Amino acid sequence: MCQLLGMNCNVPTDIVFSFTGFATRGGRTDEHKDGWGIAFFEGNGVRHFVDHLAAVESPIAELIKRYPIKSKSVIAHIRKATHGAVALENCHPFVRELWGHYWVFAHNGNLTDFTPALVGAYHPVGGTDSEYAFCYILQQLRHRFGAHRPTNAQLKIALQELCNGIACNGTFNMMLSDGAALFVHCSTKLHYIVRRYPFATAKLSDEDVSVDFSQVTTPQDCVAIIVTEPLTANESWIQFAPGELKVFVDGIPG
Amino acid sequence: MCQLLGMNCNVPTDIVFSFTGFATRGGRTDEHKDGWGIAFFEGNGVRHFVDHLAAVESPIAELIKRYPIKSKSVIAHIRKATHGAVALENCHPFVRELWGHYWVFAHNGNLTDFTPALVGAYHPVGGTDSEYAFCYILQQLRHRFGAHRPTNAQLKIALQELCNGIACNGTFNMMLSDGAALFVHCSTKLHYIVRRYPFATAKLSDEDVSVDFSQVTTPQDCVAIIVTEPLTANESWIQFAPGELKVFVDGIPG
Repeated sequence: MCQLLGMNCNVPTDIVFSFTGFATRGGRTDEHKDGWGIAFFEGNGVRHFVDHLAAVESPIAELIKRYPIKSKSVIAHIRKATHGAVALENCHPFVRELWGHYWVFAHNGNLTDFTPALVGAYHPVGGTDSEYAFCYILQQLRHRFGAHRPTNAQLKIALQELCNGIACNGTFNMMLSDGAALFVHCSTKLHYIVRRYPFATAKLSDEDVSVDFSQVTTPQDCVAIIVTEPLTANESWIQFAPGELKVFVDGIPG
Repeated sequence: MCQLLGMNCNVPTDIVFSFTGFATRGGRTDEHKDGWGIAFFEGNGVRHFVDHLAAVESPIAELIKRYPIKSKSVIAHIRKATHGAVALENCHPFVRELWGHYWVFAHNGNLTDFTPALVGAYHPVGGTDSEYAFCYILQQLRHRFGAHRPTNAQLKIALQELCNGIACNGTFNMMLSDGAALFVHCSTKLHYIVRRYPFATAKLSDEDVSVDFSQVTTPQDCVAIIVTEPLTANESWIQFAPGELKVFVDGIPG
């Protein structure tokens, strides 16, 4: 299995603190050593970093931890290979274009015998069930909504239906974003927290690192962090219900 | 205008030497300071780095110069903005999926009034004439060849026709690769060199850096470098003819 990390905020925010704890699970405090990846939206562009090395050994992960890239929407993933070899093309997150925007996707779980026909614009490059599901989702969204992006509310309904269907074939915890919204579906395990004024100090569970968010934020900031297992022990994380799909916009879950 | 750098080889090779000279033109020895990018094929996967900072100031470019990523096909670009703002989504190279493979594209030149209808699977995310042309090329290839990748020879003929047409709207020096082949079209200015046994020492024009390739290669290695302006002064670079399109496979131009 794998682990997922997402961030959605109302102002561009760096993810160094959360990624530092998360990356430690990529080979040190946990077993997810078969590659990792992270994608940051910046305006309409995406910075996409993937590596088949363990996150704790990757020079690129080291760069991410030192270089505070600010973004309003981030998806990261550490991989323990189940379907598909340990190879760059099988590292999440995956990126495709739909409606003139990049879409970023990462998945935790296993799908069995999930092979709906891919007859449209999207075909997997690698050998994972995850990328296959991503191509299927984009194909179905394009088929359902045509040439223009629908509203977040319409997308939420469509994605809930699609995820319900896919989850019949196995575990399907997933994150999907076009920068404007972060859609999160929980099949078995995901947690989130919304940090906002008054900010407090948070301490990582996986590393001896703390940050006093009141020193690095303004009272208007609103930052949602979504992750497989809570990253801090001194904050109250909210667990997703099985089958639940949420859409985060400007740090607010809906 | 911008500058292009490509590499195509028969064994995975690092591009640190060439990129070091090339990146220096991104704000120091030349004026291309409005962003840069590089994409490395690794198996079927792609490592894609883009930055809106000048290449000489970018921490990510620094990483590329220090971390020898090995690849058989690389495309890099330094940008001087003409069409489209200085923004991440306007940095080349661009990446899209076609026929279950990633395709990487970068362009040097300006296209005027180039607005053919985009009615298929590919739409630009940013505001450049370049990304528009890339989407158009992929749309036309998919339309012409259907669901499966044709041979390199078939692709070369199709791309020559497409590039001839696009170049009616302006300067269209471009590089396009799916990892298996690197297609290069010259409208005004491109040079290439094929380095093979017996290897010699090369000295960068833009930095005081030399490398003795005989020390870092085997007699079977074959490495083609394609670039807007020659990177070394002590080697014989071959200039493309205007309108010429070449396909590089395993370091061999055809």
